[in-house]
Amino acid sequence: MDDRTAAAAPDPILTLGAVALRDRLAAGEVSAVSVVRACLAQIANREPEIQAWAWLDGDHALQQAERLDALRKSGRPIGPLHGLPVGVKDIIDTADMPTANGAALDEGRQPQEDSFVVERLKSAGAVIMGKTVTTELAYMHPGKTRNPHDTAHTPGGSSQGSAAAVAAAMVPLAVGTQTAGSVIRPAAFCGVTGFKPTFGSIPRRGVLAQAPSLDTVGVFARGPQDAALLADSLYGYDAADTATRPIPMPRLLRTAQGSPPAPPVFAMIRPPGWDDADPDLHAAFDELAETLGDRAFTFTLPAPFDGAETARSRIQLAEMARCLHAYANEAPDRLGPETRTAIERGNTILARDYLSALDWREVLYSGLEQIFERCNAILCPAAPGPAPRDLSTTGDPVFNGLWTFCGTPSVTLPLLTAQNGLPMGVQLVGPRGEDARLMRTATWLFDWIGA
Amino acid sequence: MDDRTAAAAPDPILTLGAVALRDRLAAGEVSAVSVVRACLAQIANREPEIQAWAWLDGDHALQQAERLDALRKSGRPIGPLHGLPVGVKDIIDTADMPTANGAALDEGRQPQEDSFVVERLKSAGAVIMGKTVTTELAYMHPGKTRNPHDTAHTPGGSSQGSAAAVAAAMVPLAVGTQTAGSVIRPAAFCGVTGFKPTFGSIPRRGVLAQAPSLDTVGVFARGPQDAALLADSLYGYDAADTATRPIPMPRLLRTAQGSPPAPPVFAMIRPPGWDDADPDLHAAFDELAETLGDRAFTFTLPAPFDGAETARSRIQLAEMARCLHAYANEAPDRLGPETRTAIERGNTILARDYLSALDWREVLYSGLEQIFERCNAILCPAAPGPAPRDLSTTGDPVFNGLWTFCGTPSVTLPLLTAQNGLPMGVQLVGPRGEDARLMRTATWLFDWIGA
Repeated sequence: MDDRTAAAAPDPILTLGAVALRDRLAAGEVSAVSVVRACLAQIANREPEIQAWAWLDGDHALQQAERLDALRKSGRPIGPLHGLPVGVKDIIDTADMPTANGAALDEGRQPQEDSFVVERLKSAGAVIMGKTVTTELAYMHPGKTRNPHDTAHTPGGSSQGSAAAVAAAMVPLAVGTQTAGSVIRPAAFCGVTGFKPTFGSIPRRGVLAQAPSLDTVGVFARGPQDAALLADSLYGYDAADTATRPIPMPRLLRTAQGSPPAPPVFAMIRPPGWDDADPDLHAAFDELAETLGDRAFTFTLPAPFDGAETARSRIQLAEMARCLHAYANEAPDRLGPETRTAIERGNTILARDYLSALDWREVLYSGLEQIFERCNAILCPAAPGPAPRDLSTTGDPVFNGLWTFCGTPSVTLPLLTAQNGLPMGVQLVGPRGEDARLMRTATWLFDWIGA
Repeated sequence: MDDRTAAAAPDPILTLGAVALRDRLAAGEVSAVSVVRACLAQIANREPEIQAWAWLDGDHALQQAERLDALRKSGRPIGPLHGLPVGVKDIIDTADMPTANGAALDEGRQPQEDSFVVERLKSAGAVIMGKTVTTELAYMHPGKTRNPHDTAHTPGGSSQGSAAAVAAAMVPLAVGTQTAGSVIRPAAFCGVTGFKPTFGSIPRRGVLAQAPSLDTVGVFARGPQDAALLADSLYGYDAADTATRPIPMPRLLRTAQGSPPAPPVFAMIRPPGWDDADPDLHAAFDELAETLGDRAFTFTLPAPFDGAETARSRIQLAEMARCLHAYANEAPDRLGPETRTAIERGNTILARDYLSALDWREVLYSGLEQIFERCNAILCPAAPGPAPRDLSTTGDPVFNGLWTFCGTPSVTLPLLTAQNGLPMGVQLVGPRGEDARLMRTATWLFDWIGA
């Protein structure tokens, strides 16, 4: 138990899920100020060892909470996230807080405008608690954050501060992004719910572009309904993000709160990389399959899927070389070796190979559609095991990249525990655009295993 | 007058514009069969020297015309192109005619399905007259077509058969495509109207993909209203073409037939390459500027526009290397040298340079938007001079690529004549999405100069 931290019990209000807390805030049973105070107390307690925050100003958060409490008392309409503190990954622009992208070159960088995500959070009545630590430029070079379950272990990456802050009950909700596995992996390592919507659901205006064909905004919360509550306020269309479309918004939370018409059926797949995964993970998934019984069938992905990660990675590296070249040009020695190497590799990728990799996306998704005809969700691990005991890595996104590449919604639920006591995630994947039904299926599994 | 052909006078019906002919067909004053017979007579007369057709079967065309005449006589509703013969570039798939893409490797290739464009033509009541000659894979290696005004001169490319067939009064209308200057240039060389809509206006399902970021379907006709009539039936949304959007259709012809609220103002620009253009062209444009008087002001494009063609060409070559690699792999010796060299060059382009080139598009278009605030249309040459006396080239797209790259609608009008008697085109360019107003402005200029 050397590095294992004895988690001081947080204010009971912080162990509520965001939906329950939102209801109490709306009913006036608890004030936004008292919620923010509880969060600040928990941060004061845990932040020294966990280091989830890139920027935090307690007074600034309290001022937002005071305004929100006054608004509620005035009787005027309040937003769906009224009074809920939210952590925002430090690659998402905020006009009233610096946004440093986890990069030495951007230290103290102050955006002029809020990102779409922050605009939406503010208009929904959320308290922007502060900026959460990201790996360097949202790639693989670790930030300072440690795993709340054991500070000798990585929290995962790149949205490491967001995952750790929710896991340590510093905030009920947080926002992150995923280009390979940067939402699902840290959520699984930290033992919280992470949700990555269908590609193009949440506009990325004001978010650092790392690889625009893949970059996806996602959310962290205690459980799937809490994640749905937050995501509901972020879906939308923005002309500045050509991946978004003016289509009707799903009703994630409302759908997730309903009962499925029949108990769901799961396709358990063993994605490429399965054989190299932790024996703990294999055992836990065997047990899960047994528990699910005839609710699940196993399915083997056909051979072309073995090439998916090569294709996805090629797209990521090529687009990184384009999007981040200013960092590599201006001060390569101020970049971490992972980022530098990635940009160097990206610099050598040929356009025809990049375009060929892009073509794989639809081919592979056609294959997935066949599976989705036979199940409500694909079920697979969120990561190859619990968080590695190594702060120089953020772990392996091997079980995440395929879903980011194909643009399918995915959610990880903290349902498994490794022999060392660390959490492991169960990842559910749905068809594109079926985010609301996926969250309903996730809620069903979350409640069913929990019960 | 060695190679200059004494054009035998066509049936007077074929000198009508498509709009006038459509009205006579709809009124029953002329039958589709008699129109097709007149076209076939004109083709029999001119085709031996002009070689506009890659595939033509007179009986097949007459059968369509017979069915259309019967439909009209039955009193059932007829389509907006009822009875009008249309030539279709031989890279646009037809389920009942071969589509050989101008490539030796595709000789006799028979598509299983009609392209979107052909579906639309059929449902609008057009007679699909046959397939018009394209350069090899719609790039620079010339096909067999010759310029109807002088068969020693190139008709331009790549949509050479479509331009020549309309110019020689073999058909009143034809469809082509443009990736650099493949609609505007041959239209100008052949002395007809060529119209390239806003990028993404006409779905490309079933059209050979050469460079999907640039490939644009366009039309050929006698005058701008005739072009508008045809284009009206082709605009639309198709899920298979991600460049298209489900947006309301413009009413090109109806708008073009209305009067502008005020006489239009033109920004005459001298695009990169101007200084190297033919002195005939310089003289003609000086004269045009004088004629327009204070309807036109001159404008110099700022320096960044000098890089536009490099960026556009990089995108084209990189995407050709991806889209056409099967041709280069299977039988490189059966490709023309232009195509082979382009694919070889495309093979060496780096992804980051390709992506960087794509970024230029919006930057340059922002610059154009500033100009469009001050004028109804940009006015510039369609080509650096009349059609070169050289059948081993298709001429220079130097004045077309910028507009294809920026995705702006452009139209060329056959308003000028070089000293050697060959036609030269005046190109009008409008803001994206303002295709209908551009066609109204073009109609105004066409009528004003014509009068």
